[in-house]
Amino acid sequence: MIRRRGTLFVVSAPSGAGKTTLCREVRLRVPDLAYSVSATTRAPRGGEQDGVDFHFLSEERFQDLRDRGEFAEWATVHGRFYGTLAKPLEAMLHEGRDVLLDIDTQGAAQLRRWYPEAVLVFIVAPSMAELEQRLRERRSDAEDDMTRRLRRAREEVALWRRYDYLVINRDVKAAVDQITAIVLAERCRTVRLSLRFPDLEVPD
Amino acid sequence: MIRRRGTLFVVSAPSGAGKTTLCREVRLRVPDLAYSVSATTRAPRGGEQDGVDFHFLSEERFQDLRDRGEFAEWATVHGRFYGTLAKPLEAMLHEGRDVLLDIDTQGAAQLRRWYPEAVLVFIVAPSMAELEQRLRERRSDAEDDMTRRLRRAREEVALWRRYDYLVINRDVKAAVDQITAIVLAERCRTVRLSLRFPDLEVPD
Repeated sequence: MIRRRGTLFVVSAPSGAGKTTLCREVRLRVPDLAYSVSATTRAPRGGEQDGVDFHFLSEERFQDLRDRGEFAEWATVHGRFYGTLAKPLEAMLHEGRDVLLDIDTQGAAQLRRWYPEAVLVFIVAPSMAELEQRLRERRSDAEDDMTRRLRRAREEVALWRRYDYLVINRDVKAAVDQITAIVLAERCRTVRLSLRFPDLEVPD
Repeated sequence: MIRRRGTLFVVSAPSGAGKTTLCREVRLRVPDLAYSVSATTRAPRGGEQDGVDFHFLSEERFQDLRDRGEFAEWATVHGRFYGTLAKPLEAMLHEGRDVLLDIDTQGAAQLRRWYPEAVLVFIVAPSMAELEQRLRERRSDAEDDMTRRLRRAREEVALWRRYDYLVINRDVKAAVDQITAIVLAERCRTVRLSLRFPDLEVPD
């Protein structure tokens, strides 16, 4: 029997676009979609659990893993490290499980290089004004971070053409519908089905 | 203002796969999806309305339109003509409307040549045994047609790799979910969005 390899769904966005909320909702809608928990050196925010939302690591531990080539992608965002451990990701894909990754734009670009068949989804806020408001509401950092965050978000929005899909997060329900549709549709793509139904020419 | 051109969704299947029922349900779920009414020389079946389900034409009228190049695609299926009139289809796409077409495999192959950007969806019954049962239940033709229909269906199933998406019609609800997901997902593809949001780089 040929076992189908899983598909990697990479959801990426400038901060403030709402991707973490959307990914949580999509996982509820598509329960067989595995989730790759990212590693980070930033401190947990309210309610975040180690091993569930992130693997919270010290800077030393992160750098050690990075130097040993354990990350499929890693990046520095606002002075903190973020990364995806390669081994658990590979194990899930090898088992044939589709995997959702919630990562920043630098990480998405690195993954595209290693996984050219990955499906890249970009989330944007409906406008820069809306994005600014969302970042101000979150405000877990010093106020003077805002200018830097907004400049970075503006640069990142310009990258949308490098992605396969664009979802404009005007409304959580509609955006979750769209990301869920992308997952269901990609599972029907004939280019991905060749291994799953190698004998489809003679279906009975 | 640049007006986006509509996307053409072509749903095709061997007869007995259930595509007409699925297309009707998908149109209820995606009300802004326009429908291209096919022309045919076959007689109406129970409840079918002229101009709604099909344009029912005499053989002479069909051949006249065909000879004048009015069809975007046409084919002979079980001795009857079927075709898509080019002008109304072009008008809908030009207005920016996404259009659903329910046509046979010969017509789908012709449309792919004229509309390389069309989205081709192939529907199959879960097995040849199931397909045979569905064809026998329908049985509007002489019993000895069955062998020919089944042979043709078997040849057509082998064409699945020429399509972008494959939907296995095990269950109407699940198959409609999948086709609807394909329509929603294709609307989010960045390659199709370039004209709709020419100014997305500077979103405010």
